[in-house]
Amino acid sequence: MEYLTGVRIKETSGFDELKEMKTSERSVSVEGAVHSIRRMGEISFLILRSREGLLQTVYEYGRAEFTLDGIREGTFVKAEGRLKEEERAPGGVELLLNGMQVLSAPEQPLPLAIAKWKLNTSLETKLNMRSVALRNVKERAKFKIQEGLVRGFRDFFFEQGFSEIHTPKIGAKGAEGGSNIFKLDYFHCPAVLAQSPQLYKQMMVGVFDQVFEVGPVFRAEKHNTKRHLNEYTSLDMEMGYIQDFGDLMAMETGLLQCIMKMLETKYAKELKLLGVNLPNTASIPCIRFDEAKQLVSEKYQRPIRTPFDLEPEEELMIGRYFKEEYDADFVFVTHYPTKKRPFYAMEDPQDRRYTLSFDLLFRGMEITTGGQRIHDYAVLVEKLEIRGMSREGLEQYLDTFKYGMPPHGGLGIGLERLTMQLLEEENVRETTLFPRDMSRLEP
Amino acid sequence: MEYLTGVRIKETSGFDELKEMKTSERSVSVEGAVHSIRRMGEISFLILRSREGLLQTVYEYGRAEFTLDGIREGTFVKAEGRLKEEERAPGGVELLLNGMQVLSAPEQPLPLAIAKWKLNTSLETKLNMRSVALRNVKERAKFKIQEGLVRGFRDFFFEQGFSEIHTPKIGAKGAEGGSNIFKLDYFHCPAVLAQSPQLYKQMMVGVFDQVFEVGPVFRAEKHNTKRHLNEYTSLDMEMGYIQDFGDLMAMETGLLQCIMKMLETKYAKELKLLGVNLPNTASIPCIRFDEAKQLVSEKYQRPIRTPFDLEPEEELMIGRYFKEEYDADFVFVTHYPTKKRPFYAMEDPQDRRYTLSFDLLFRGMEITTGGQRIHDYAVLVEKLEIRGMSREGLEQYLDTFKYGMPPHGGLGIGLERLTMQLLEEENVRETTLFPRDMSRLEP
Repeated sequence: MEYLTGVRIKETSGFDELKEMKTSERSVSVEGAVHSIRRMGEISFLILRSREGLLQTVYEYGRAEFTLDGIREGTFVKAEGRLKEEERAPGGVELLLNGMQVLSAPEQPLPLAIAKWKLNTSLETKLNMRSVALRNVKERAKFKIQEGLVRGFRDFFFEQGFSEIHTPKIGAKGAEGGSNIFKLDYFHCPAVLAQSPQLYKQMMVGVFDQVFEVGPVFRAEKHNTKRHLNEYTSLDMEMGYIQDFGDLMAMETGLLQCIMKMLETKYAKELKLLGVNLPNTASIPCIRFDEAKQLVSEKYQRPIRTPFDLEPEEELMIGRYFKEEYDADFVFVTHYPTKKRPFYAMEDPQDRRYTLSFDLLFRGMEITTGGQRIHDYAVLVEKLEIRGMSREGLEQYLDTFKYGMPPHGGLGIGLERLTMQLLEEENVRETTLFPRDMSRLEP
Repeated sequence: MEYLTGVRIKETSGFDELKEMKTSERSVSVEGAVHSIRRMGEISFLILRSREGLLQTVYEYGRAEFTLDGIREGTFVKAEGRLKEEERAPGGVELLLNGMQVLSAPEQPLPLAIAKWKLNTSLETKLNMRSVALRNVKERAKFKIQEGLVRGFRDFFFEQGFSEIHTPKIGAKGAEGGSNIFKLDYFHCPAVLAQSPQLYKQMMVGVFDQVFEVGPVFRAEKHNTKRHLNEYTSLDMEMGYIQDFGDLMAMETGLLQCIMKMLETKYAKELKLLGVNLPNTASIPCIRFDEAKQLVSEKYQRPIRTPFDLEPEEELMIGRYFKEEYDADFVFVTHYPTKKRPFYAMEDPQDRRYTLSFDLLFRGMEITTGGQRIHDYAVLVEKLEIRGMSREGLEQYLDTFKYGMPPHGGLGIGLERLTMQLLEEENVRETTLFPRDMSRLEP
């Protein structure tokens, strides 16, 4: 009988390991993709690429006991040789090649110059050839940063005693209502794709007190803008036993501090590669929705056109104002109008035209919507009636409140947008692995 | 200007904190739900429930300066009092109540006896009243264990240098083909829900070398069994630069070891609560598909009816055999027949009727399917032709291989099934937060 007993130890070394090692007496071996080849007469430089970055290898004609025939950019190889310090090489080392084994050869030359420092290609082409374009180390680094954001999110909420949940993406009814819902046929029943885990995460607050979820959400919104996607990854949390919705904003501030620390400690390489300026998260200002509108209208002489909504341009102006006046990258805008928030949003008892809710703007763009929710059954039922909404499909959600729920609230963060704003990208598709929009369903 | 500067410190204590503290001179306060009330004449015991478990509080008539009017099971409260050691109480402490403030009151009495140790209710009822039923501490604990499985999965693969990815769930074409695909209308284009992240995770191996994803998958399978769901959480990984598919099984063995350690260290409370026997993961036997079928057919005198498939009953028998003969809870079954594996599975060069693939059985049930994939473009294209499959919708997937891909393979684990087998449950719905099956789309 054969047995498996655990992870096999690799005989090859990682690039980072070699860069620590600096020199080697004996031959070492590595695996990687041939990222670029520079032929210089007597010698050739082959830059290898792995998940850890780039490694310079050197082939000397006459000295090496193999030829470079059949090895080209895009070939996956195992290379062997002695390690030597070399200041001008990435990581300060190079490998003097003794041998090279082809693991896998490409059928055709690469269609993009991925070895260039900056991939000089249109967004459209990058998206069409996603699996090739991301082999460019800067393109790839964006998604390592994104990984760090998710990791920081989860680490923080575990630390705070939250439970992680997985809620269904197919359901009978959308959380927010409205027209932006994808519909599907579920064994001859009408079904929808989840716009958000909202109702489920609230239902789980009565069970776990505080929960979070990282998962896809689906919005059939019919606008193709630089900041909208029809499917995105939502970082959601919901928290019981809050005093007021300030607890939620305080929690998000702590979250952002934790995320930035995660990036600084574990993603320093990528931050440097992309030249990221980490935003200030030590202290985040907070302003009422109506005051913010008034403020920027006066400051930038732009009349208020929509009293109940924040236009993208107004978000930009608020961002600009707080950057200029307070050197703040983030701003909480609070007390959004009731008529623009979903039925479950708690109204401000002092003025029912507004809700105990907030958006978080990051460099002038909304990356979070959150707020306190109604936890009283009677109030919730009344709200549905006022809005003329049916209880159909909400029975179990409402029952949750009928049997008792603590005061609670929560928030959702769009992962791709957060990444976009952090990396100061112009289009959210730059920071989406495989974007879905009105005209893109592939790859 | 108001500022948010980070997480607010709670004035109330957690149950675990109090259980450490044992006694208190001064009054302490806690928040929780009234889980049960026992009235005993002069005194009443109110058991509170929070995410951390149960806490006994004691109300003495005459001594306390408040009444229990309006407080019943299901009320969410903030309680104040002095802490005292009490052997017979959960965690060895009880709170002598001085005050109690109602945070939120239920509209109706609880419809289930959630305070009972074992919730004596049908699965159907538990699922219909999910958000109430899970307030039972044993029911809830199952999902904490599930959380631990996911956490162990991610921790392990981060440790091993994998990258986390988020791939789209709406696409133009399913990964595996076949009829079990949910279809939807995507802005007047036909679209499908992802059966698995298969094609995407492979495409990302050329970028990140090794990747993992935790996310929902959708299968429109028309059978309602105790082990099938139409939406479930898949733990997926894909790994480049493998020597052979043994690397994948070795990796999964290491993963299971890491997961069990995670449960032992961070979920000891829940393991104890549920009386879980952690399986042996030190060494996992491995047997060929055809040999396994032969073996159990002879041992248990059951003729082989389907030479190319493993029937559920055969999986059970294999599980039983390896438990009896080797005290093994897990068995890798390798070399599944080519005709039963998807187009991307690599055939065994020694016998093309079989693939370099495996399933992992846990206590007689498949919880993982994995294997080496074809990485050569020409071979992949030929395989599609042999199968009479169209390249339509696979263009970018195929292009990935055209431009070079390392030898690789991967696996997927059904989270709910893994939880079910670990907890020795009879039905996968017991370990699914909100199951989706042919007859269930709500809650």
